[in-house]
Amino acid sequence: MTPLKNDTFLRALLKEPTDYTPIWMMRQAGRYLPEYRATRAKAGSFMGLCTSPDFATEVTLQPLERFPLDAAILFSDILTVPDAMGLGLYFAEGEGPKFERPLRDEAAIRALAVPHIEDKLQYVIDAVASIRKALDGRVPLIGFSGSPFTLACYMIEGGSSADFRHVKAMLYSRPELLHHILDVNARAVIEYLNAQIAAGAQAVQIFDTWGGALTQPAYREFSLAYMQQIVAGLTRQADGRKVPVIVFTKGGGQWLEDIAAIGADAVGLDWTTDIGQARARVGDQVALQGNFDPNALFGSPESIECEAARILAAYGQGSGHVFNLGHGISQFADPAHAGALVEAVHRLSRPYHA
Amino acid sequence: MTPLKNDTFLRALLKEPTDYTPIWMMRQAGRYLPEYRATRAKAGSFMGLCTSPDFATEVTLQPLERFPLDAAILFSDILTVPDAMGLGLYFAEGEGPKFERPLRDEAAIRALAVPHIEDKLQYVIDAVASIRKALDGRVPLIGFSGSPFTLACYMIEGGSSADFRHVKAMLYSRPELLHHILDVNARAVIEYLNAQIAAGAQAVQIFDTWGGALTQPAYREFSLAYMQQIVAGLTRQADGRKVPVIVFTKGGGQWLEDIAAIGADAVGLDWTTDIGQARARVGDQVALQGNFDPNALFGSPESIECEAARILAAYGQGSGHVFNLGHGISQFADPAHAGALVEAVHRLSRPYHA
Repeated sequence: MTPLKNDTFLRALLKEPTDYTPIWMMRQAGRYLPEYRATRAKAGSFMGLCTSPDFATEVTLQPLERFPLDAAILFSDILTVPDAMGLGLYFAEGEGPKFERPLRDEAAIRALAVPHIEDKLQYVIDAVASIRKALDGRVPLIGFSGSPFTLACYMIEGGSSADFRHVKAMLYSRPELLHHILDVNARAVIEYLNAQIAAGAQAVQIFDTWGGALTQPAYREFSLAYMQQIVAGLTRQADGRKVPVIVFTKGGGQWLEDIAAIGADAVGLDWTTDIGQARARVGDQVALQGNFDPNALFGSPESIECEAARILAAYGQGSGHVFNLGHGISQFADPAHAGALVEAVHRLSRPYHA
Repeated sequence: MTPLKNDTFLRALLKEPTDYTPIWMMRQAGRYLPEYRATRAKAGSFMGLCTSPDFATEVTLQPLERFPLDAAILFSDILTVPDAMGLGLYFAEGEGPKFERPLRDEAAIRALAVPHIEDKLQYVIDAVASIRKALDGRVPLIGFSGSPFTLACYMIEGGSSADFRHVKAMLYSRPELLHHILDVNARAVIEYLNAQIAAGAQAVQIFDTWGGALTQPAYREFSLAYMQQIVAGLTRQADGRKVPVIVFTKGGGQWLEDIAAIGADAVGLDWTTDIGQARARVGDQVALQGNFDPNALFGSPESIECEAARILAAYGQGSGHVFNLGHGISQFADPAHAGALVEAVHRLSRPYHA
């Protein structure tokens, strides 16, 4: 493997000294980029992009051609895993992802099994290998997965949900069924992320998009415990380097101490948390990733710079901060504004690393 | 006025001793009740219910006929205020509230003015008087309003929004325009709530549904500061009693210390916050209202009782807790489950007030 030319991101995740604060953006390869829309049109569909290692490689690298980002992230979707379990993923126009066979029935839940990666998810692993090769050591490649609870939300509701009605009915009335799903999901995610690491992912992120919809005790029992199980099961060394693990619970700002204690290297923050207070709360236990409001990209370039400066100042001196958005970039964001953010973070962060 | 037969709710808000923990439920008069749906059918539309003091009185009292709730809340909508400002409220089937003339244009924003209550909102004030009379001292009547920021979200976006794109563009790029809207809203809300108090509201709640979508500094500047202005401007005595003020920011759990300091009597909590930790954080400054996950009503009656017991135990001994949901009750909730919650809270809370 080609040695890394820019390992700032990996060093920041391990709280090692860096010259500046590295930045990547959740959903950085996405619809806000016209070149992404062009590739997607060629691929025919979103899943057409995900299932073709060539297309996935092409769109993963697109934002790096525009902006001096410090990491690339595998282009894929968190729902590839439940799809591989046989739930029948499809995308209804304007409605987001859906499953043909949502998990509501006890027999179907008991029959749920960890999918064979090489049978069902090899296209993702091939994409990781292809992207890693194409990156040629430019920046590190991030692999990812949804959290067991977040995957379960989609699997049980059959798609996005405003209220998680079916999930919560199960959580409160039949917790043992939900635990069964979560246990299968956790074991699947461990195999899936370890396969990504074996194929070349140099860091991994667990996206817990919906854990923040829970009460604190339910979060600990139904989301965090399974992320802890995953972290404990991951390969943490590859190519003679540590493979850092980032956990990100959207809406998890009240539970940072708990999240920081599960053994991950870094904790992602959404924009509602003050990153300076977060740093004081977690101490030296983990690095922090975040936490620019993605919709602050709708402001002017001047206001974007001002907001970036505020976050960098709140984190303060020293390493351990990976700059990112607090959630995925909007499809309506102006790419020039994203570029202004990357430039501002690189420029304004240097004094904090002097 | 008839003296109050049950003032447990008012006493809990002022942290005075009570025999048990009082309970009411956000959106307790609503679509989950078949009798509500029947009245709404008679009224022809949601706004038909709101604009008729007779219908508003009928639906406000319906949940009290089913459950021994400790407070009634005016049946109305937070968007009556921007409607009175001329934005043209309408309800599109399946899409929720919309405005015909969203506030995007600087001239329209500069022309925004506090509406004359007696011209434009007298129907709400008449409903308050009618409900207070119909209650005949049974339980206290709560008046309410949206927070200036939450109203501004609907006014600028023109309806519900997943990303508050236009609001955030204005907040970051043209903050002076947003401040102008918020200032008009705050002055309108003061007049509106004071008119409700004059007509018989015995407590008032400010609903800040969307403040939780902001960063901490933006929340302080664009939401909390205006709620503080309102609290300072409210009539706090009526019928020889204090009129308690409750502020509720959904998603505000990280900012409780700030919220508790604006001069309100009570702070509402959504279900993501541990109410015991919240009590430790705010000390004796305010009472707390909350914080049962509304979607835990989809669980079994046994799990509902268990969850109620958990929250009561987390709050612990003594007064200062008004039991409530952490957000409005779902239209899909089973009324029997709501009844089980009310019964459990009344029964299980007595030892904490011994």
